[in-house]
Amino acid sequence: MQTLQEKASQWSGVDTADAFAIDDTNMFQKLGLQIFINLSTNFYTRVYDDEEEEWFRSIFSNSKKEEAIQNQYEFFVQRMGGPPLYSQRKGHPALIGRHRPFPVTHQAAERWLYHMEKALESTPDIDADSRVKMMNFFRHTAFFLVAGDELKTQKQQIPCKHAASKPAES
Amino acid sequence: MQTLQEKASQWSGVDTADAFAIDDTNMFQKLGLQIFINLSTNFYTRVYDDEEEEWFRSIFSNSKKEEAIQNQYEFFVQRMGGPPLYSQRKGHPALIGRHRPFPVTHQAAERWLYHMEKALESTPDIDADSRVKMMNFFRHTAFFLVAGDELKTQKQQIPCKHAASKPAES
Repeated sequence: MQTLQEKASQWSGVDTADAFAIDDTNMFQKLGLQIFINLSTNFYTRVYDDEEEEWFRSIFSNSKKEEAIQNQYEFFVQRMGGPPLYSQRKGHPALIGRHRPFPVTHQAAERWLYHMEKALESTPDIDADSRVKMMNFFRHTAFFLVAGDELKTQKQQIPCKHAASKPAES
Repeated sequence: MQTLQEKASQWSGVDTADAFAIDDTNMFQKLGLQIFINLSTNFYTRVYDDEEEEWFRSIFSNSKKEEAIQNQYEFFVQRMGGPPLYSQRKGHPALIGRHRPFPVTHQAAERWLYHMEKALESTPDIDADSRVKMMNFFRHTAFFLVAGDELKTQKQQIPCKHAASKPAES
């Protein structure tokens, strides 16, 4: 049985080492807070204006754009070497758990990445090396979440608090 | 509707600020790798030897003790200011997603915390301030995972990739 990260690597074409090359340098120190805010604002402006793929935009229709932007840049800042803004406000990122209400399909991952690539290209002052590292991280993470989404359709365990259950992921 | 972290704070009695006080100082620099290895070894030795509460031990019966130890200390090291050992090997922590196979009940959280408190007290060279900060973090996190576990019993969304779904957590 494939683990989450094996599926993420296979589907994204990005191995774990390349995905987490964001940790080789401190991206937050290199780029600074404002660039992360600009990137997430740019990204969600594209998403909320996505008229070509209405089904994708509709995934976000119950979330406020300003909140989506803040959630995203605070997570990026925290994960890329900056202060733990996200956890101070909302607790653990728990990426799979928090994406549970959304249909994170292969198709949705590709559309998310399409907008993020455009946002990375059009946000000023992001150097090429940072862009490549972030895109690898995002691509791997998007498909990690697709793998996480598929857990929802797996058979539920016996709802008995004393029952041992066989782990699907080790 | 309560968010995950609101439930975690209410059930644990630890607010988010106290839980994430582990970020006030770099705990990894303060304690060093070996203490984290010792703590997790101490903890899982207690768990795998738990004969009083066989139902709790049985939760871990499909996992190898050595692997459980490594997963735990690598995550702690990464989360508490050290190198991202966990993600380099396994990808995102995704705490709720990776605990999905297990019955993370209130009772299981309390038993986990019981063993962790004993482990923290009996692992040499952990100062009182670090012990308090870690225990607050663990207590909040344990009940965050209980809140995450309850998502499993919530109604599934319509299994249509084009359907928008109402978020349970924002």
